[in-house]
Amino acid sequence: MIQFEARPGILDLGWGHPRPELLPTAEWGVAAGEALRVFGWQALTYGYAAGPRPLTEWLAARLARIEGGDPDPDALFITAGASHALALLASVLAEPDDVVLVDSPTYHLAFQILADARVELREAGDDLAATIRDLRAQNRRIAFLYLVPTFANPTGRSLPPDRRRALVEREDLTIVEDDTYRELVYDEAVAPPSLWRMAGGRNVIRIGSFAKTVAPGLRLGWISATPALVGRLAGLGYVHSGGGVNHTTAVTMAAFGASGAYDRHLTRLRESYRDQRDALATALSVEPPPGGWFLWLPVPPGRTATGLLTAAEQHGVSFVPGPHFYLDRRGGEDRIRLSFSLLPPGELTEAARRLRLALN
Amino acid sequence: MIQFEARPGILDLGWGHPRPELLPTAEWGVAAGEALRVFGWQALTYGYAAGPRPLTEWLAARLARIEGGDPDPDALFITAGASHALALLASVLAEPDDVVLVDSPTYHLAFQILADARVELREAGDDLAATIRDLRAQNRRIAFLYLVPTFANPTGRSLPPDRRRALVEREDLTIVEDDTYRELVYDEAVAPPSLWRMAGGRNVIRIGSFAKTVAPGLRLGWISATPALVGRLAGLGYVHSGGGVNHTTAVTMAAFGASGAYDRHLTRLRESYRDQRDALATALSVEPPPGGWFLWLPVPPGRTATGLLTAAEQHGVSFVPGPHFYLDRRGGEDRIRLSFSLLPPGELTEAARRLRLALN
Repeated sequence: MIQFEARPGILDLGWGHPRPELLPTAEWGVAAGEALRVFGWQALTYGYAAGPRPLTEWLAARLARIEGGDPDPDALFITAGASHALALLASVLAEPDDVVLVDSPTYHLAFQILADARVELREAGDDLAATIRDLRAQNRRIAFLYLVPTFANPTGRSLPPDRRRALVEREDLTIVEDDTYRELVYDEAVAPPSLWRMAGGRNVIRIGSFAKTVAPGLRLGWISATPALVGRLAGLGYVHSGGGVNHTTAVTMAAFGASGAYDRHLTRLRESYRDQRDALATALSVEPPPGGWFLWLPVPPGRTATGLLTAAEQHGVSFVPGPHFYLDRRGGEDRIRLSFSLLPPGELTEAARRLRLALN
Repeated sequence: MIQFEARPGILDLGWGHPRPELLPTAEWGVAAGEALRVFGWQALTYGYAAGPRPLTEWLAARLARIEGGDPDPDALFITAGASHALALLASVLAEPDDVVLVDSPTYHLAFQILADARVELREAGDDLAATIRDLRAQNRRIAFLYLVPTFANPTGRSLPPDRRRALVEREDLTIVEDDTYRELVYDEAVAPPSLWRMAGGRNVIRIGSFAKTVAPGLRLGWISATPALVGRLAGLGYVHSGGGVNHTTAVTMAAFGASGAYDRHLTRLRESYRDQRDALATALSVEPPPGGWFLWLPVPPGRTATGLLTAAEQHGVSFVPGPHFYLDRRGGEDRIRLSFSLLPPGELTEAARRLRLALN
């Protein structure tokens, strides 16, 4: 029924999944009832293709509150999750055999999403300008650069301000910014400004999601884009035909937002995920990342991430080895990704103890 | 917020939308609560990529009940609606520049869905074998034939048994059967067997939907296919990454089905749509179709569908002219599509009166 598979005896830090107790089952039920009461039959019929106004208006206001600027519902397109957003963008922005540039390391499941669009993936590399120059010298069209600049999957790190500025100042490159983790910021930390906001929408398209802040099963996310691109997405045959891609869930989310449930839930999430992060980081004696769901742990010299996985599972703990996050798995044997999202603090402490045994 | 736009003074038979009073707002709210109670956090986390078992098992049993055979949940892939199913199938079955064959007339919004997959659309024509032979002589690859063989949009007609047999016996052609209207069958009529069932899954893939039987806003449908194709769809990057394409709604539908609400609702729908169909068909003195949502009315000699639309709107009634349902609008000026789904019987009778005024 679900994607997660429990493995007896294993504390699994491999899953980037929410902790079950933190999913808002009761509150979502209330929102579903509320949406059907408030919107009536309009909650169940064909929706507005770009997404229902009650959601885009609430979301635009929310985004303006957390990152400044004026709310602009016309710069939002509601998607069936962040992965769907990336698939849609690849289908409209890329022609087959175009190049899409990716960070190294980056969100590993993006590789397949992009490959399904028949594009060729290339590493952006340390010298982005040189990579672009070389590709253009070969007459290759670059559709866009995909990256997760804020509280990244898998590193937990954020792109520094000077590299953000350099990216948004490029006029020759479209950037697809996966901004999934923006709201998962802990302590007094403040998320860095989104590339989308910095660029004023010029060369950046931003992907957002309710999967981490509310629930992955909803399949609800969004694209921040120019009204022209929003119109192009809304004009896709299957989006127009279906009346948007997830109308009933979208109006339920509007009710969840308008009632204050979103704000209350996010406060609870931040406290819980902060405690989980601290449990894992403390037990491993590493610096806790200011946001996101992941630790990107160095593997001791002389060991490999893949080799360590075997040892770790013998000690009853698991994770994702670094190479998964590199294009064609070229790199990353010196790192492992540990997710602190799924397990409660006590189990994370025990998982860390087992991992230390495997490391030693 | 929604796709439908009311036009003052116009009784609009153009929309293939459900009648608002027939959308199960109260019952869907009950199912949402029930799904969250029964499945708990598993209703909200990442789902099984092909669709949650509670839904595929209920749906397989339902399909076996209405069309015979053994239930097979492994031959089902849950989609975000029928349009999404067609878009997905085009993306996995067709290479850019392949040909997709379409019926004339056929569901008009399918044209754009297919064109977005960068395929070339061609009419199947009266002599399908000749069309295929000619295309192959030109070295064109035919990805599939798309058609709505049962209670079709726009004609309301079903493909006769001999043509069904001829199609499923072809070994050189994949058929995508849009079976959206199967459950909307009136009086004592029985829907013809699906091509999918007749072919035993050999050369036919079937698309189904809950848009007409429950609600379009849910964005929930399915594909009947071989387990191999189901696996290929489930392995698409964005489907795998998202844990299926509409998990929470899918488990809510499972609760709606298991509680008996689906059966009760369908009984009510059939009675209501039958009354609506009868009101329109009687007032226009035409034969009522045994299922579906549409009348495909001949235009009197000497008039055109497009010309009639202008006259009709002056009399306060609207519809979709026939050419919309023909590839590149080549044909159909002799027909108009009237939908009896949206309006109650009294308004359909009045709409017919206005249409007769425009016709005379």
